[in-house]
Amino acid sequence: MIVSRNLSLQSVTASVRRENLVYFLLSLVVTFVFNWLELHYNWPKLNEWALPITPFTILGGGITIFLGFRTTTAYGRWWEARTLWGGIVNQSRTLVRQAITFSGKKGEILPFARDIAYRQIALVNAIRCHLRQSDPIEAIQAYLPAEEIESLRSHQNIPVAILQNMGGLVQSAYRDGLMDSIQMTSMDSTLADLTDLLGGCERIKNTPLPRQYDVVPQLTISLYSVLLPFGLVSTLHWWTPIISGLITFLFIAIDSIGSNIEDPFENTIHDTPMTALCRTIEINILQMIGAKDIPEPIRPMRGVIH
Amino acid sequence: MIVSRNLSLQSVTASVRRENLVYFLLSLVVTFVFNWLELHYNWPKLNEWALPITPFTILGGGITIFLGFRTTTAYGRWWEARTLWGGIVNQSRTLVRQAITFSGKKGEILPFARDIAYRQIALVNAIRCHLRQSDPIEAIQAYLPAEEIESLRSHQNIPVAILQNMGGLVQSAYRDGLMDSIQMTSMDSTLADLTDLLGGCERIKNTPLPRQYDVVPQLTISLYSVLLPFGLVSTLHWWTPIISGLITFLFIAIDSIGSNIEDPFENTIHDTPMTALCRTIEINILQMIGAKDIPEPIRPMRGVIH
Amino acid sequence: MIVSRNLSLQSVTASVRRENLVYFLLSLVVTFVFNWLELHYNWPKLNEWALPITPFTILGGGITIFLGFRTTTAYGRWWEARTLWGGIVNQSRTLVRQAITFSGKKGEILPFARDIAYRQIALVNAIRCHLRQSDPIEAIQAYLPAEEIESLRSHQNIPVAILQNMGGLVQSAYRDGLMDSIQMTSMDSTLADLTDLLGGCERIKNTPLPRQYDVVPQLTISLYSVLLPFGLVSTLHWWTPIISGLITFLFIAIDSIGSNIEDPFENTIHDTPMTALCRTIEINILQMIGAKDIPEPIRPMRGVIH
Amino acid sequence: MIVSRNLSLQSVTASVRRENLVYFLLSLVVTFVFNWLELHYNWPKLNEWALPITPFTILGGGITIFLGFRTTTAYGRWWEARTLWGGIVNQSRTLVRQAITFSGKKGEILPFARDIAYRQIALVNAIRCHLRQSDPIEAIQAYLPAEEIESLRSHQNIPVAILQNMGGLVQSAYRDGLMDSIQMTSMDSTLADLTDLLGGCERIKNTPLPRQYDVVPQLTISLYSVLLPFGLVSTLHWWTPIISGLITFLFIAIDSIGSNIEDPFENTIHDTPMTALCRTIEINILQMIGAKDIPEPIRPMRGVIH
Amino acid sequence: MIVSRNLSLQSVTASVRRENLVYFLLSLVVTFVFNWLELHYNWPKLNEWALPITPFTILGGGITIFLGFRTTTAYGRWWEARTLWGGIVNQSRTLVRQAITFSGKKGEILPFARDIAYRQIALVNAIRCHLRQSDPIEAIQAYLPAEEIESLRSHQNIPVAILQNMGGLVQSAYRDGLMDSIQMTSMDSTLADLTDLLGGCERIKNTPLPRQYDVVPQLTISLYSVLLPFGLVSTLHWWTPIISGLITFLFIAIDSIGSNIEDPFENTIHDTPMTALCRTIEINILQMIGAKDIPEPIRPMRGVIH
Repeated sequence: MIVSRNLSLQSVTASVRRENLVYFLLSLVVTFVFNWLELHYNWPKLNEWALPITPFTILGGGITIFLGFRTTTAYGRWWEARTLWGGIVNQSRTLVRQAITFSGKKGEILPFARDIAYRQIALVNAIRCHLRQSDPIEAIQAYLPAEEIESLRSHQNIPVAILQNMGGLVQSAYRDGLMDSIQMTSMDSTLADLTDLLGGCERIKNTPLPRQYDVVPQLTISLYSVLLPFGLVSTLHWWTPIISGLITFLFIAIDSIGSNIEDPFENTIHDTPMTALCRTIEINILQMIGAKDIPEPIRPMRGVIH
Repeated sequence: MIVSRNLSLQSVTASVRRENLVYFLLSLVVTFVFNWLELHYNWPKLNEWALPITPFTILGGGITIFLGFRTTTAYGRWWEARTLWGGIVNQSRTLVRQAITFSGKKGEILPFARDIAYRQIALVNAIRCHLRQSDPIEAIQAYLPAEEIESLRSHQNIPVAILQNMGGLVQSAYRDGLMDSIQMTSMDSTLADLTDLLGGCERIKNTPLPRQYDVVPQLTISLYSVLLPFGLVSTLHWWTPIISGLITFLFIAIDSIGSNIEDPFENTIHDTPMTALCRTIEINILQMIGAKDIPEPIRPMRGVIH
Repeated sequence: MIVSRNLSLQSVTASVRRENLVYFLLSLVVTFVFNWLELHYNWPKLNEWALPITPFTILGGGITIFLGFRTTTAYGRWWEARTLWGGIVNQSRTLVRQAITFSGKKGEILPFARDIAYRQIALVNAIRCHLRQSDPIEAIQAYLPAEEIESLRSHQNIPVAILQNMGGLVQSAYRDGLMDSIQMTSMDSTLADLTDLLGGCERIKNTPLPRQYDVVPQLTISLYSVLLPFGLVSTLHWWTPIISGLITFLFIAIDSIGSNIEDPFENTIHDTPMTALCRTIEINILQMIGAKDIPEPIRPMRGVIH
Repeated sequence: MIVSRNLSLQSVTASVRRENLVYFLLSLVVTFVFNWLELHYNWPKLNEWALPITPFTILGGGITIFLGFRTTTAYGRWWEARTLWGGIVNQSRTLVRQAITFSGKKGEILPFARDIAYRQIALVNAIRCHLRQSDPIEAIQAYLPAEEIESLRSHQNIPVAILQNMGGLVQSAYRDGLMDSIQMTSMDSTLADLTDLLGGCERIKNTPLPRQYDVVPQLTISLYSVLLPFGLVSTLHWWTPIISGLITFLFIAIDSIGSNIEDPFENTIHDTPMTALCRTIEINILQMIGAKDIPEPIRPMRGVIH
Repeated sequence: MIVSRNLSLQSVTASVRRENLVYFLLSLVVTFVFNWLELHYNWPKLNEWALPITPFTILGGGITIFLGFRTTTAYGRWWEARTLWGGIVNQSRTLVRQAITFSGKKGEILPFARDIAYRQIALVNAIRCHLRQSDPIEAIQAYLPAEEIESLRSHQNIPVAILQNMGGLVQSAYRDGLMDSIQMTSMDSTLADLTDLLGGCERIKNTPLPRQYDVVPQLTISLYSVLLPFGLVSTLHWWTPIISGLITFLFIAIDSIGSNIEDPFENTIHDTPMTALCRTIEINILQMIGAKDIPEPIRPMRGVIH
């Protein structure tokens, strides 16, 4: 995620793809050909190949509505992803607080609470790797005993398996009399919330925006950008590349920002900053159980935080 | 659901219906007639039959707003459908985790938990068939005992009946002392969530977008597309079919993408991928109860996943 | 609710009110007068009474935004109404499942569960009549004992009274030891959900869209439609009625579809299909308690379902 | 709240402020001056002071988007206010049903339930007065004992104090053995819902739309309305005041309807009808506890309900 | 937050940044140069450097959609921030009511309830400072014992630590028999709600709108504003600066209002009024526990409330 307010140029360049240059060159060619022919040969047939601008207003209106929809939807997905991870932060804090206060006495952190705490750190890192399609095992082995790591290897969905293991821990605490069934179901419902949050992230990850909403605007904008110089040259003359470039830039920029943020778990600079959020959760949890070695928060690197 | 990023051409062609060709041919005819008459006969009366373009701007604005609304609404239905199925995935995991941890001891899976697990696999497949209007019995008989299958046959709404049966299982577990009433009501509330999700899918299935929102834009776009070449030919001459085709294409494409995704349970390639989601749930549940034969996940075929 | 995909013509005609014809005739008159005077008398003063079209673009933009808002809002109300009734379906299934599983033994349906089941059928029918402002007593007397019907007559809000009676039944079951206080409060919270859904329907019923949002667009569209032919005639000549009619049709159609669906409990063909939903609930509930005489679902009549 | 469908003229006039007349007179003056000078003096310099209309299209587009946002937001606030009050109605019914069924035996209404019922009637009236900034004490003294009224006088937020008193009643009922802790926490959570609804109303009351969204569109519309006649007069001649008036009317009407409904607790005719809703709640509650003297519902007066 | 209705001029000036003046001066220069050259030298080549206005309509449409999206999103963030703080107000009242009614007897406030009350006041002030990046310790030391303040110093996230401490208090009350486990988990779930609200505020604080949505519209509006006078001067002559200034003002004003409110926790005059809300909570809580010295509410200063 880009957080720096000063990285403007880089982020703009990033959102303007190579196409933009192509269309700009095309408009230069069109402008040059038309103006040169007109000036030097005064070629009257030329006007038949130039276009009036009004139809571009209608097309521009249609494209504009399409881009408005796409922008809103892409941002909606991006913000929902961030909100889901915000929920993971919240439920992590709540789960560990419950583990501590339901089981222990004041000021005392039982081994059960520590077990839950480390499994929760493992869970959030596993969700992160699961979504970014890297191997979760490596990321979580520092937090879990070796045999538990081994048993996780066979699972297709490691976060689900960790959640089940935490359920087993809560069950044992209940059977051992550390908490009663009311407190147990209360912790179980926090696990259910985490299950929902995991499922929500998987939904965004596995369900792209209907592909047609990517393809049709791109195709239309391409054709529009190719034709636009012909529509402008007869009235704008040498101004054509500037205005044509500006319109094309705006349309392509809106389209490409949308396509940057619509998939927020793809390991790009526009991602939900899951690495940083996992670290925040780790710090919070470690401080709650009174651990000594607290890692540093992750800071943005060159204006980008992962 | 189309998931491939490379299937662009196919998906575009799919969204452009036969009408598009008709309107393109019409614009060719109009262009040819007007230009030919003008060139060869220099027919002055012709201008009276050509139209100026400005009224098309107003009409285009109105159509555009209508399409904006329709796109947003259709996408809203499609995304809600996907979210409901995401909820079914989540509640399946939660229900089976509760069945295991509420009833058993650590590491032990009681027959009760297995019964719930297989009924949950049956439930999600029954919901899938119920929504796609195929016979659920066939899809679920592998997971349920023969007499239970028999008793389900008489039910008009099989998912509701399976949910009731699961309620009966939970009740028995409670009467048998496997769990107390707090844990029982907690599982019952997971069943209530599944009831809500089933009802949500039925709502989308049974309540189409008000039909007028399909008919009026289609009619207006048709008339617009027929008249458009007349409005362009006097200024665009031989460019008419290209620009007219592009505008018509954009409007028809937006309209038809909307109509593709607005009904997400109709067994088309734009459907919520219920078959794949049912398989995901099955894999998750089977791994949770430690089953041996885990089926393969369903992969996209030619860029489409069902 | 219109469900047939083929009823297009009827639904279109329904959404185009008599005004449309009036405006079309007016545009015919304007067209005829202007063109006839021009052709036969070549009256030069005429141009002063014709209008340019550009101001209509601005006005059209304003109207269009207004209509966009109105459409979104009207659809929002219609869909919320349907969602609330979907919730009533869900809670009905949940309430009866709870009544059966909380009180009885496996496979056994206690009289308490039957009492709840019939009262729930009565409740949904009472809500339906309450919203459509017909007398609920007649619709519910088949499901309740005569003395209970009598006591309901004095109530201004019969659904609220039925909910209270169900609360009383749950209370008795608790006092009689059929369920403990956890199960009792769990059923009570289902009753609270039904109270919320009832209140949501009453809110939509009693709170129309601010009336100004009906009056101002109607007034503006009327004036626009009257003036439009004057703005088109000088450039469109004999085409005027067609284009003017199309623009007027689009605006009036969008406006009138919005006004059709914005009040979804008014006993029109655009209503939430409450009669059909009540029947669905009745069938589900009767099958859950193992009743014998199951009524038929309600099918659409001529493409409309009530 | 305006509920009558026939009060159209009044509501329109209400939404058109005096400014409208001013702008209309200005456009008359501009029209007269330009046309008169042109006719009588054929003043060629005049055209330099008339404006072309195209820039007004751009400006109109910007204003239109701004008004669209404002309308949606204002309506969102108004509808949220109504939904919050709908929630107050629902929770009132639920709270009294709980008070009756949790404490008593079938058919019996304990003094505890009556105490809760009257305090709830007092609460909703106190919220109403609190929001309309009138003194709540007068409105609630009929429902509460004199000493409780006295002790409320010192509170800055009387609804919060009443909620605390109801919490105290529930606590006593629990200590006296009328209900167990499960039922007590269940009633407490209804009180928490009422606290949320109260807080939601206070939020809308105390947080106006950012003032800039009132000021900037008003300023822009004013300047637009002043300049518009100059932009129309050279092409519309004597039609200028009509078209200019219509455009100005539309913009000012949309703006002023938004500003009417954006603050729904200000004792205007556009308010959430809190007085009527309080009466509805009172009737419902009194009938639930079997009271004898049921007041009449509040009916609309001249199409307006408060 | 600006609350005064009369501060219009100040708020307008605030939303119009220095750029506006720059563009206005530029348009003056352009106007003067073109008109002066035309009048005095009748320079025919000039028209080649003037632009037609139609392309600005297309660009204006694109910018307008972008600004519409940005306004909606910025307002959505601002309103969500306010809603989260409204939730903090509500949960504060609920938590203290629970602390009083769950633990004590009627009319009696136990030390436990007072401890919770003061910690809740500390919590909301700590959240306020945490979000505004000032040191929370100073703001909260009046409400907590010195040793607790000391132990908080080492925490990176002080609100999370206070929430944990409150969890410890609830745990002690449960172990000491002041409340049973049902009431304890009910208070714990209020703490979980507060954890969610804290996390929601952190999400808004730490996740700016994707920076591209700030940079691209600003860049486009700048270029648009620079080019606009060239597009207007050939038809508007001396009117150019007025119309150009008005269009530029509208675009920049919409953009800058959005950028003012999109980050509502930055200690500006557009902030969520957290200081005032903290005081409201303090007053409410102190009155609930019957404290004597009630501070004054915070009033707006020069139309602004913090």
